[in-house]
Amino acid sequence: MGDILIIGGGGMVGQKLAATLNASPLVKDDKVTLFDLGFPDNGAPAAVRATGNATDPALIKSLVSKRPETIFHLAAIVSGQAETDFDLGWQVNMAAFQMFLGAVRQEHTDSEGAYCPRVIFTSSIAVFGPPFPDKIGDEFLCAPQTSYGAQKAISELLLSDYIRKGFCDGLSIRLPTICVRPGKPNLAASSFFSGIIREPLNGQEAILPVSTDVRHWHASPRSAAGFLRHAATLDTSLLGNRRAMNLPGVSCTVEEQIEALRDIAGNDVVALIKPEPNEAIRTIVSGWPRDFTPERAIDLGFRAETDFHEIIRVYIDDDLNA
Amino acid sequence: MGDILIIGGGGMVGQKLAATLNASPLVKDDKVTLFDLGFPDNGAPAAVRATGNATDPALIKSLVSKRPETIFHLAAIVSGQAETDFDLGWQVNMAAFQMFLGAVRQEHTDSEGAYCPRVIFTSSIAVFGPPFPDKIGDEFLCAPQTSYGAQKAISELLLSDYIRKGFCDGLSIRLPTICVRPGKPNLAASSFFSGIIREPLNGQEAILPVSTDVRHWHASPRSAAGFLRHAATLDTSLLGNRRAMNLPGVSCTVEEQIEALRDIAGNDVVALIKPEPNEAIRTIVSGWPRDFTPERAIDLGFRAETDFHEIIRVYIDDDLNA
Repeated sequence: MGDILIIGGGGMVGQKLAATLNASPLVKDDKVTLFDLGFPDNGAPAAVRATGNATDPALIKSLVSKRPETIFHLAAIVSGQAETDFDLGWQVNMAAFQMFLGAVRQEHTDSEGAYCPRVIFTSSIAVFGPPFPDKIGDEFLCAPQTSYGAQKAISELLLSDYIRKGFCDGLSIRLPTICVRPGKPNLAASSFFSGIIREPLNGQEAILPVSTDVRHWHASPRSAAGFLRHAATLDTSLLGNRRAMNLPGVSCTVEEQIEALRDIAGNDVVALIKPEPNEAIRTIVSGWPRDFTPERAIDLGFRAETDFHEIIRVYIDDDLNA
Repeated sequence: MGDILIIGGGGMVGQKLAATLNASPLVKDDKVTLFDLGFPDNGAPAAVRATGNATDPALIKSLVSKRPETIFHLAAIVSGQAETDFDLGWQVNMAAFQMFLGAVRQEHTDSEGAYCPRVIFTSSIAVFGPPFPDKIGDEFLCAPQTSYGAQKAISELLLSDYIRKGFCDGLSIRLPTICVRPGKPNLAASSFFSGIIREPLNGQEAILPVSTDVRHWHASPRSAAGFLRHAATLDTSLLGNRRAMNLPGVSCTVEEQIEALRDIAGNDVVALIKPEPNEAIRTIVSGWPRDFTPERAIDLGFRAETDFHEIIRVYIDDDLNA
């Protein structure tokens, strides 16, 4: 009765979410289906693992036809790749989400309105573009300066309209940059924010492509899974007509990240960080938000870490020592 | 060399724009092509009138292949119709615009970047949704509460990203409600704002479906044509990365509209306005913006009327006596 579908369930955040749902179900005996291109070895268990592309209408229709009550939509091409492969970015990050919403609407219609799932869409702070105020408030405009950000902002607008029309319930949550990501670097331009903590803690060198005064907005993978769980159980009547939301996080500079690492792991670990300026990454990152006042999300009970030390400790507890 | 394409050139605003381009070309000897489902009898002349649907990829590709330097995209399903016919609204107001941008990008690529037209997209204040501040500033979020508004907001994001990538130049302008529209009422929920002025001035009764304290944001058809002309000639390097803009207008209540009509045309004309509350229209209108501080557009030289008396006089000069 509480069936859950995670589209993009093989990715890092999807796997973290699946692991918490196994440890502590949202609803007793809920069945979790993970859908993705593939799954990591020794990944989080699930009642069903379905393999395929989120752009495939027949597969998406088939998954939605099982009428899961809660659907997390996490499938995306990352920002760097969406910038270099324009068509693929729009196809995966926007067209596939629109197609998915169409499948939900069709099932809603076929059930004469009885089926009205909660859809949780993972948006991003990349929906914002400069110039920024010092802290971005809950009513600041979306003016993305990457295709990825534009695709996320558009998907938010689509979901909001489908919710308004009553085809589904739900909300879009704008994740901070997730840090410290376990595993390997990815193609996201933000990858280094995790790399400069993760690689040194694993005894490896890490490249720092930007200057240490860059300020950014972070939350841990554990917080990301927590945001998603909270979004799935929230009283959506409190949301009114605004269904896209900034989330809490930690605003800090790269220097503060490095000093937190020094406090926790010492000078020898910090010495593994090698500055190597990269103009392309510097340019992209200069267009990113630095700080927020996410009052609405905090009022609604969303919680993140309170400083970067805590973010590093979550990585050590959940991933490094796991 | 200054060829102009107006997609949606048969509609009211398109015709006003075409008439001003005939009277006063943007560039000497520019050739104007109007494209629409059809054209009014005795409509504005044009070098070429092309008939067809803006959702037809072959027709749009053919029009863009002529490489017009300036393209106005005005084709849309109005708000009331987009609300009742969900699929048609998304098809015409979003998918067709995305398809059009794809045709522009293809031509840009085929020309090895030489072709980079200016695209002027007519967006709307329907991109905003309540709760509103007393005056909406230039950095207020888009949270549309109609499908029409969502489609316009999404089209803005699409155009901005195509501009950012260098496939075209241009901007989206968020038109105030255009008032006084000549001709017949249409399916837009805003139709009455014009009707209560136009019908009485033509000796006919007009229905007022909302209370007189409703405040709204207006500009004349003459201003609409002026906005479009100004957008076509503006130095776009002044716009930076924000390519969607609120425009100037007149904020007034229905009562102020009526009193302006009384000042200009007398009590007998005002007596033709018949209050007839309509809950559906009242609900839609209650979700609309009332006032703006469009500082950016004013700094960039966009101009509208300064009071509602002036808006009525424009109607009398340009349409009633024409």
